[in-house]
Parts: sequence; C-alpha cells; structure tokens
Amino acid sequence: MSTTPAAPTRTRALQEVPALAALAVELLTSAGPAVALDADDARRLLPYWRLVDAPSGAALMAEGDQLHTGHMLLVLEGQVTVDSGADHVALAVVGAGQLLGELALLDGQPRSASCTAMTPVRAAAMSRQALQRLLEEQPALAAKLLALIAQRIGERLRALGDQLQMYAQLVQGLQTQLEARRP
Amino acid sequence: MSTTPAAPTRTRALQEVPALAALAVELLTSAGPAVALDADDARRLLPYWRLVDAPSGAALMAEGDQLHTGHMLLVLEGQVTVDSGADHVALAVVGAGQLLGELALLDGQPRSASCTAMTPVRAAAMSRQALQRLLEEQPALAAKLLALIAQRIGERLRALGDQLQMYAQLVQGLQTQLEARRP
Repeated sequence: MSTTPAAPTRTRALQEVPALAALAVELLTSAGPAVALDADDARRLLPYWRLVDAPSGAALMAEGDQLHTGHMLLVLEGQVTVDSGADHVALAVVGAGQLLGELALLDGQPRSASCTAMTPVRAAAMSRQALQRLLEEQPALAAKLLALIAQRIGERLRALGDQLQMYAQLVQGLQTQLEARRP
Repeated sequence: MSTTPAAPTRTRALQEVPALAALAVELLTSAGPAVALDADDARRLLPYWRLVDAPSGAALMAEGDQLHTGHMLLVLEGQVTVDSGADHVALAVVGAGQLLGELALLDGQPRSASCTAMTPVRAAAMSRQALQRLLEEQPALAAKLLALIAQRIGERLRALGDQLQMYAQLVQGLQTQLEARRP
C-alpha cells in the first residue's frame, strides 16, 4: 500500500507518452447536446494533465480526506475499486475513461469515497492549479471541460437515484414481510 | 394545472424586474475553491436569463420528458415540490436559490424528476441556446457558470450518497429483525 494517499508514486507530463496522450484524447471527447468537447479540444487539453503511474494496491484517494482534494484523475489503464464507509463497502470497480475526484476538486469538500488501484493503474491527473491556468489561458476550453465534468457528475447522480429507488422498494418489501410475521 | 409542462405561462427578460435581477445576482454568487462566481460575474450573466412567472400548481418539469430539456430554472420566489415515480413520491420541497433541470439541460437525457409549483413561483430560466450564446460571447463567464452547475449537481450527489448509506443500514436492520422472527 502506498503511504501517501493523495500523491501517487510517479508523475510526468502526459504528452511524454504519446500512446496514452492519444488515449486520453479519445476518452475526453464527448458530444454533449449543450456543450461538446471534440478531439481538437481534447488535444488542446493535454498540456494541462500529468501522467500518474500507480502500483497495484496504491491508495489513490481516501474518503473524508479534505487536505488532498487538489486534483482529479482520468483513468487510462488498469482498474480502480471505489469504496466507502468504515467497512469499505465496494461501490464500484472502474476502468479507462472514469473520472475520479472531480467533485472534491471543484467544491473542496472531503473526498466522498476511497479509490484504490486493483491493478497497476495509469491515469491522467489535473490539479486545481492547472484547471485555473486553463481557465485563464483558454476559457472556452475550460468551459467545455467543466461541462463534461458536470455531465459526468450528473451521470453518477442519475445512477444513484435509480439505486435509491431500488432500495426504497426493498425497504418497503422487507417491512411488509416483517409486518406479516408480527407475533 | 398548467397544460404545458415545459413552457411556463409567462416570460420576459429578467432585467425588466430589477429587484428579482438583484436577487438572482445574490443567489448565483458563489465562492468555490476552484472556480468562484462573484457578484460582478453574476451581473454579467443577467442578460442570458428570462423571468418566468408560474401560477401555483403549474407543472414546471415532467419526469421522463425528453422533448423539453432545453432550459434550466433558478428559483427566485415561491416553493417547488420535486417528485419522482409513478406514485409521485415527494423527494424535496425547494425554494429560492435552487437550480432545477440543469442535469437534462447539459446531457439531454430525460428529466430525472417532476417539479410542480406549490405556490406562485418566479424563476429565472436559461435556455440551452442562451448557454451556447454565453459560451461564444463570454467563455470565461460560461466556464464559471458551468463550474457552479457542476458543484450544485455534486451537492445533490453527496446528499443522495448519504441517503443511500442510510437506506443500506435500514435494509440491514430490517433483515436482522426478519431473521430473528423466522419461524
């Protein structure tokens, strides 16, 4: 296990590894109905990302951590488990294309879940400083990235909403069963 | 009840009503750690909003509606119930400062919940066209608004995550009780 949850082992400019830079472009390209981020836009984003290599088992983000919220990750290779709570209930296993930590990057609130590398992981990292620099240097591009981030958070919100409805039905079912067995 | 869920009864330029324009500025001002939207920014946003007056009982948004996702609302006055599902389970009652419909505005997916005016409601409405115009005319400002939207969606995600944990515990508790009563 890495001892430093927020500072993964090794980073360099994403553009130093052209194959991964090309993968990042592909994964960032999106065609939202309101604000689209095309391949050219994604390429212009590359200088703002660092490449992170993390070994299997590395703690990428720690739930509740409010000190190290200064970056988000875009998973390029490998798999990451997302878990939450004292008993580390696994919420998801995610891979290439997944954004991690974008919520805390924007709002500065404690990380909402822990992320651990299940395999060796390569990810693109954008720091809050890089986002702010992007906003100053290329505001239209920053707007497109922020629209993408908002959409991704929205996807998770929709999925969680469905999960919540499922739970609500489960609770109702269990209560009915319990009622039937009341002595 | 209004018969047109997506086109509230009456709209005009938000700036025609200075007191409500000032309120909108106040409600939009935010100090995110990554991207802040200050009062000057909020004032520069005003021309992109329309003012909507909706009578009590008006359907502002309909769950599942994928045809009328072209605008979001910022509630200025009055109260709105948010409900979901065939049995219209009330999810929340929201008032001044709440954004509605920003998710579907960005991703074009069907509305995730229904919103109904509980009282007469006045809201600022931004269309997808206005957002795109903003992006072209004032990209830095668009970026700040999009960061605000992402943060607001994130807040709802965090709240829903907490709710989900509560449900998970409830399910566990009910299952334990049920186990104990097994004949």
